[in-house]
Formats: sequence, structure tokens, C-alpha cells
Amino acid sequence: MPQTTLTLDTNGPGLLEFTDAADAFVRGSGIDTGLLTVFVRHTSCSLLIQENADPDVRRDLDGFFRRLVPEGMDWISHTTEGPDDMPAHIKAALTQVSLGIPIAKGRMVLGTWQGLYLFEHRRAPHRREIVLHISA
Amino acid sequence: MPQTTLTLDTNGPGLLEFTDAADAFVRGSGIDTGLLTVFVRHTSCSLLIQENADPDVRRDLDGFFRRLVPEGMDWISHTTEGPDDMPAHIKAALTQVSLGIPIAKGRMVLGTWQGLYLFEHRRAPHRREIVLHISA
Amino acid sequence: MPQTTLTLDTNGPGLLEFTDAADAFVRGSGIDTGLLTVFVRHTSCSLLIQENADPDVRRDLDGFFRRLVPEGMDWISHTTEGPDDMPAHIKAALTQVSLGIPIAKGRMVLGTWQGLYLFEHRRAPHRREIVLHISA
Repeated sequence: MPQTTLTLDTNGPGLLEFTDAADAFVRGSGIDTGLLTVFVRHTSCSLLIQENADPDVRRDLDGFFRRLVPEGMDWISHTTEGPDDMPAHIKAALTQVSLGIPIAKGRMVLGTWQGLYLFEHRRAPHRREIVLHISA
Repeated sequence: MPQTTLTLDTNGPGLLEFTDAADAFVRGSGIDTGLLTVFVRHTSCSLLIQENADPDVRRDLDGFFRRLVPEGMDWISHTTEGPDDMPAHIKAALTQVSLGIPIAKGRMVLGTWQGLYLFEHRRAPHRREIVLHISA
Repeated sequence: MPQTTLTLDTNGPGLLEFTDAADAFVRGSGIDTGLLTVFVRHTSCSLLIQENADPDVRRDLDGFFRRLVPEGMDWISHTTEGPDDMPAHIKAALTQVSLGIPIAKGRMVLGTWQGLYLFEHRRAPHRREIVLHISA
């Protein structure tokens, strides 16, 4: 079945939308009814389906996770990769590494306000790979 | 492959079980071995598989998320849709938008105590759509 | 399609890797391109894909969840199964019950540092079942 890899370049923490790329892949597959699986090949960024209308929602989501998992927690052992690395792993654990989205009439069944986002948790620029796979 | 949409009417925050509806769809499909994907088409409610024995578990789960993401956090920007809206998006991000459940011998492979729940995070009544899709 | 059940014996809270068992199942299936679904049949342990390099990452993940969801929260109602039971359900709700991992060239498309883990949240030893299912 169809499979591809998206490459996204990130520039610091926050939500990066890739709904259009996923939609293009689904439409190009010619599959009418099926399942799209989205998988991110990293442990310090993650996936999220969230509101794509008001950008404040994404800012507030990022704000919440920064407050819930701040840098500099004094009990952290894994500090060799920088103060933002272990919080990044924790934020990734609290969100998604994979998403399954049914396809109907050749399109993802997303609700009106749903967009697909890569949630970057590291400060430095990173190249991120997302695998898209369609099952019948 | 088989696909359907469930519609659930919610009446405020909490966990609403739909295991029976999913089970009926799986049995009706006649599929012996496969994969059920459950997807919710919204960003202010979410999905959860949790214990279906003691109702206190669901009350405590809701209680935890209300405490972790209270209304009225003063740094929130997205407030135009009411004080419960941004907390709803955050709780949805911390739980699931999609679930994949294998099917064996014509039934979901749920453990003895596992039930499927819609986790409503908004106060006002909402009509929610959940897409069920079966892959072989 | 191929399906199997892994049984893992746990000995208290923490992350238990089962990447090799999943890899062996995928290779043994002979499937070149497809989707592996991993599903855990319990509500007081969960699944996580996380870094398999530095063991401190797993210790810190467990440390974070113990601090976020401590035993003894005084508002908890569900206490009949022990002080670690309701926190276990909450930690399970905050992480994953199912994971979807595409297969390419006969192998899971895991990133270099990604490993599959059972995240045990109970103190007492438990026998845990994980269902693996491959779709085309």
C-alpha cells in the first residue's frame, strides 16, 4: 500500500502544520476508503491534531506544556544533551507518536477545525521525518 | 472496508461509554481478524480506553484533568469561546484523538476491564462524531 | 493478517522494552510494506515509544509521571485497590494504549533512537498482554 516520508525543518518549539501535505498524499493515492497512519520517527518532538482556526490555541498549547514540563527541574538526571532535551522527551510522552485517521470518499475524515501538527519540543533547528502509510 | 460514524450527544464534562456500539459494528462487519480504528472529529473532546468496572475511576480521571488544567489560568490567550474552551483543547491534547484496536475471532481484543469512552471536556451540550473504520 | 500476543511479566513501575519481540514478529510475517498495531489489554499500564540510548531518560520519564500523579492525592475516591491503583489509571490515560507503526522493507520504520516500551504503573508484579497485529 502507499507509503511516503515527509521531511519538516523546525526552528524551535511550537506547532507546525502539515495537513496539506497529508491531504495531497491521500488524494494522490486514489484510495477511496481506508486508513492513514501518521508516524513521527523521533522522541523529542511529537504529533497532535488540534484546532487550525485561532493561532492562539497553538500558542496556549505550547504555553501549557512549557509550564507543565519546565526546563531546570532539579531532579532530572539526563542533562547531557541540554536543558531542553529531557523536557522534550517528557512532552513527547504526553502527546502522540502515531495517529490513525480514516479515509472516506478519498479524503481524511478530519472535522472542520482539525489540523495535523508536528509539535517540536527542542530549541535548536531540527530536520524531522514523518512517515505516512495508507491501509485499505 | 467497513466504516461508519457514531453520533454521541454529551451533557457536560466526563466519560461517556460507547463500547457496545463499537462492538456491534465489529460483529456486524463479519471480519474475523483485523484492526478497528476509532477517530473523534473534534478538538475539545477526546478518546480514552479505561476501566469500566468502578465508576469512581472515571470520576477520578475527570477530577485529575480538571485539577491539572483548571479554568481561569491567567496566561491563557484563547478565551473568546468561554473559560472552558482552551482547557478543553489542552485536555484533548493530553489524551487521544485516535485508537487502534485489533480484532480477533470477530471481536475487539479488549481486556476484561477495558471500555471505550468519549471524554467530553466542554460544559455545554455537544453533538460529537466518532468514525469507526475496520482494516483487514 | 498476522496477529500475536506478547506476554510480559513486570516487577514494579518503570519502562520495559519489547522492541526486539515486535521486530521478530514483523520480520517473521514476511510483510514488506504494512502497518504494525500494538495494543495493551490493561488500564493500569501503558505503551510508550521513547529513547533507547541513555537509560536515564527512562528513569526521568518515570520520575516525572510519579511527581505529576503522586500517590495519596486526598480527593481520590477509587482507593479500594491500593494507593498506586488510581495513579496508575491516570498515568495510563496520559500515555498510550495503542501505537501504529508503519512497516517498510520488512521492518518497522522506527527512528534510530526509538524503542517500544511497556510502561508499568503498578507496584506489585503483573503479567501483561500486548497484542501485535499487522495490516497490509
